[in-house]
Amino acid sequence: MPLRVVPLGGLGEIGMNSMLFDDGESALLIDAGLMFPDDTMLGVDFVIPDFGVLREAAARLAGLLLTHGHEDHIGAAAYLLKEYDIPVYGTPLTLGLLRHRLEEYDLDGAARLVTIERAGRFRLGSFDVEAFPVCHSIPDGVGYILRCGDGVFVHTGDFKIDPRPPDGVPTAVTRLARLASEEKVTALFSDSTNVEREGYSLPEAFVGEALSEIFEGAPGRVIVAMFSSNIHRIQGVLSAAARHGRRVALCGRSMVRNVATALSLGCMRLPRPDILLPVEEAEALPDRKVVVLTTGSQGEPRSALTLMALGEHKHIRVREGDTAVLSSKFIPGNERAIASVINHLFLAGAEVLHEKISEVHVSGHASREELKIMIGMVKPDHFIPVHGDPRFLIRHRNLAREMGVPHAEVALNGDILEFADGKMSRAGKLAVGRFFVDGKGVGDVESFVLKDRYQLSQVGMVMVVLALSSTTGEILYGPDIVTRGVLTENGSEASIEGAREIVVRTWEDSGVEARKDPAEIQTDIRRALRRYFNKRLERKPVILPVVLEL
Amino acid sequence: MPLRVVPLGGLGEIGMNSMLFDDGESALLIDAGLMFPDDTMLGVDFVIPDFGVLREAAARLAGLLLTHGHEDHIGAAAYLLKEYDIPVYGTPLTLGLLRHRLEEYDLDGAARLVTIERAGRFRLGSFDVEAFPVCHSIPDGVGYILRCGDGVFVHTGDFKIDPRPPDGVPTAVTRLARLASEEKVTALFSDSTNVEREGYSLPEAFVGEALSEIFEGAPGRVIVAMFSSNIHRIQGVLSAAARHGRRVALCGRSMVRNVATALSLGCMRLPRPDILLPVEEAEALPDRKVVVLTTGSQGEPRSALTLMALGEHKHIRVREGDTAVLSSKFIPGNERAIASVINHLFLAGAEVLHEKISEVHVSGHASREELKIMIGMVKPDHFIPVHGDPRFLIRHRNLAREMGVPHAEVALNGDILEFADGKMSRAGKLAVGRFFVDGKGVGDVESFVLKDRYQLSQVGMVMVVLALSSTTGEILYGPDIVTRGVLTENGSEASIEGAREIVVRTWEDSGVEARKDPAEIQTDIRRALRRYFNKRLERKPVILPVVLEL
Repeated sequence: MPLRVVPLGGLGEIGMNSMLFDDGESALLIDAGLMFPDDTMLGVDFVIPDFGVLREAAARLAGLLLTHGHEDHIGAAAYLLKEYDIPVYGTPLTLGLLRHRLEEYDLDGAARLVTIERAGRFRLGSFDVEAFPVCHSIPDGVGYILRCGDGVFVHTGDFKIDPRPPDGVPTAVTRLARLASEEKVTALFSDSTNVEREGYSLPEAFVGEALSEIFEGAPGRVIVAMFSSNIHRIQGVLSAAARHGRRVALCGRSMVRNVATALSLGCMRLPRPDILLPVEEAEALPDRKVVVLTTGSQGEPRSALTLMALGEHKHIRVREGDTAVLSSKFIPGNERAIASVINHLFLAGAEVLHEKISEVHVSGHASREELKIMIGMVKPDHFIPVHGDPRFLIRHRNLAREMGVPHAEVALNGDILEFADGKMSRAGKLAVGRFFVDGKGVGDVESFVLKDRYQLSQVGMVMVVLALSSTTGEILYGPDIVTRGVLTENGSEASIEGAREIVVRTWEDSGVEARKDPAEIQTDIRRALRRYFNKRLERKPVILPVVLEL
Repeated sequence: MPLRVVPLGGLGEIGMNSMLFDDGESALLIDAGLMFPDDTMLGVDFVIPDFGVLREAAARLAGLLLTHGHEDHIGAAAYLLKEYDIPVYGTPLTLGLLRHRLEEYDLDGAARLVTIERAGRFRLGSFDVEAFPVCHSIPDGVGYILRCGDGVFVHTGDFKIDPRPPDGVPTAVTRLARLASEEKVTALFSDSTNVEREGYSLPEAFVGEALSEIFEGAPGRVIVAMFSSNIHRIQGVLSAAARHGRRVALCGRSMVRNVATALSLGCMRLPRPDILLPVEEAEALPDRKVVVLTTGSQGEPRSALTLMALGEHKHIRVREGDTAVLSSKFIPGNERAIASVINHLFLAGAEVLHEKISEVHVSGHASREELKIMIGMVKPDHFIPVHGDPRFLIRHRNLAREMGVPHAEVALNGDILEFADGKMSRAGKLAVGRFFVDGKGVGDVESFVLKDRYQLSQVGMVMVVLALSSTTGEILYGPDIVTRGVLTENGSEASIEGAREIVVRTWEDSGVEARKDPAEIQTDIRRALRRYFNKRLERKPVILPVVLEL
């Protein structure tokens, strides 16, 4: 049987990365990530791939290989493991972060987590798996070389090529160059996230230096907001703070937890034993001795940074003389929330630095020139861009074609790619889907429910209760009218009274027979009220009439 | 009496620009704009200032001065004119665009529109009003010099300093420099929109040249999307198309209407009489002879551009060989919608150019160096930044202070600034508000309603109807359960059945007396169902129980 490669998520979207490799004897997954909901997914916590498509391959499913510890690569693993009891392979930090997630689902005891080296090589069913280190915005990242009867396959995971990485372990260019010289690489699957950025990404060390300058020059406290998974950058903050005689107070649950995990795994070290400062003691120190390191860089409304800016945080209130640094990307969709927190920081008197005006953030993904290095180094016969919106995949494919890769193709979620004798062909499409996770429900919130939620959010609802006698058709009770999200309490009495009259008139106008048919009179009431609200207010609330027959 | 200046909108936000000047004898407004809703304003069409605060000044309200024809400067004029019958002063194009709006409210007949020259000077009550031309992303823009007993005041409107403006009329630097040399300017109110951008804004001519190159080189059709009010740029498209032997098909209602208005007012001219191409004939021409000029640059889901990308437009379907150009800003909040339309354009086979990767858009607002020119030229004694988020106003104030303006201050909406004998003081705050416009309702959708809509959008609703005998407390009907936005139709039967049982059990558990009190049993049902859904689904739908007593 040929090798089948099927992206379950992440090809045609940002997040929810997961890719199946199945040679008919064994199958494995690279990553099981989640996607954060966009603003059309009302009330949805997050989105995961539909792992139900793996059922057919369940018996030969040999394991899950993780590339790194970001949510869009590990965040759906708990849902995968609930259905399939398979071992999970990852580096220490990746598994450490996964463990936090599994604890939330009470799965930490049952899961079989296998720690691998960043350059480890091991057997997984019929596959020879070789990890190789990659630099990214979280430590301990890897890509994978998979070898099976049908060829040699390289998956980069998320990567950049940083010449001076904070942990001293560069992306494995030497290993990949040697691979290409010794073996023919059948296909390369490479990270497309930053294909639209020209040139090279900046090294992480730039940010450390920029922060160091800020810590030196700032007249008072410096409040740095970032993602708590960016362990390298947290290390950079600690080192820079130590250099300039500042101590660091950690804010935000995940910040405190991830620092503890990274320290216990040796992924981070304290430059001075007393560098960390309990947040409740921050006010006791002179302002120039304090750095506050917090989550909330995306302007999340209840995050520590927002509360600090609004003066509602328990320990830290932003004031004149503070410098706030957003050391993170403005993630598309969050711009308004981020702008809002920046405005509040300014209004509270702080100076604010962020990636648009200062070098306080660098990306963890390869820019165009680095993508070219990867393609040029691996010299694959086939090229499949991974991770990103369709336009990124198309641009990345075009780049590979320009570089002379013989077969560069775009695949989207569900596309079945077959590799046999070093040749790729397309074998149709797997009906991959996605599940919306809302509370305990997985997949029961569908487009149907979201459509209702959307409609309710735009127009509100009007509920009518009317009880009729089943014998005479006379009104026994009502009409009772309840609205939500249509009218204010004050000044809406006239509108409600008018609606009540409309219902009574509809009842009067209907024949005696119709009055005995709740379904028919419900339809009439709905139609009449729709007309009424549209004419009176130019609004079209959801109308829910309940006509009882007694 | 001193002159009172009060911003009614636009100071502390983007949009809804309106500023009151009131010297006790006469009062006038500069602009009456709307704001587009952000994603927290569910179902809101747009937002306008609360002009109710003008009631006290109504008798001396002498007129509305418009700076230019963008919605955030003229879009609330219809609502102002409904309440106050005052004359409106504006240049020909500004009034032409206002007329479109007034027609929609059946106000076009009644309104007193007074056409002014771009460098006109006239009396308005106790004020001497002098308009001066400014360059912006719409033609026919002006700023105003207001003179009254309390001083000389300059309001820039929205402006940039373009050395080679498309209509040949530069921002009135000579006039303003002469003003400063002849008279002492008491206060300058200046556009803060782009204070975060270093250097100079690029001239509009750059875009014309970039488009010309694209029209020359593109292998097939070119589809250009932009705001239909950007008359200069539309002119640029027509001229560039004529130069390269292409004809231009207009798509989108406002595009067709604004071109007609601009042509009739002489703000635009056709480079060739046959340059415009009926859109239904576009397919008959060779692809290299066609430009499609359309709205939809913000990724609006039902716009012409989106329909073209999805293959759902009546006349134009995007295909391999097309080049799409988004000649506009990525407005914050719209990034995801814009990314979505770009993805669909790519998937349909088009090449896509936009401001992030190509010089196909320039801003209509002054960058930092131009803002410095304005301040340096006008040499005001006081400086009040206008138009923008708090952080822009604060940065712009800091810039003025660095430049040595004696009194630079931030004012926010409602702040009362008093000028007497050339001195400014603060005289408290006017309770300015904003009205959400939703259909015909103005101001009846308040935070209360939006909170309900938000809650419904996140969690949906569960409605329960139960009829009890008023004498025995026995159940005569129900419980009937209707949900919206909580559960799907399929697979939710068990949840609904469970909810029904909970209601019956609640009824059973309540004492005989409670059964006769609908309010009490309603509360019990709400509480029980809230617990039930939270436990079963970790969701908290809005629960609306109706208990009838018969």
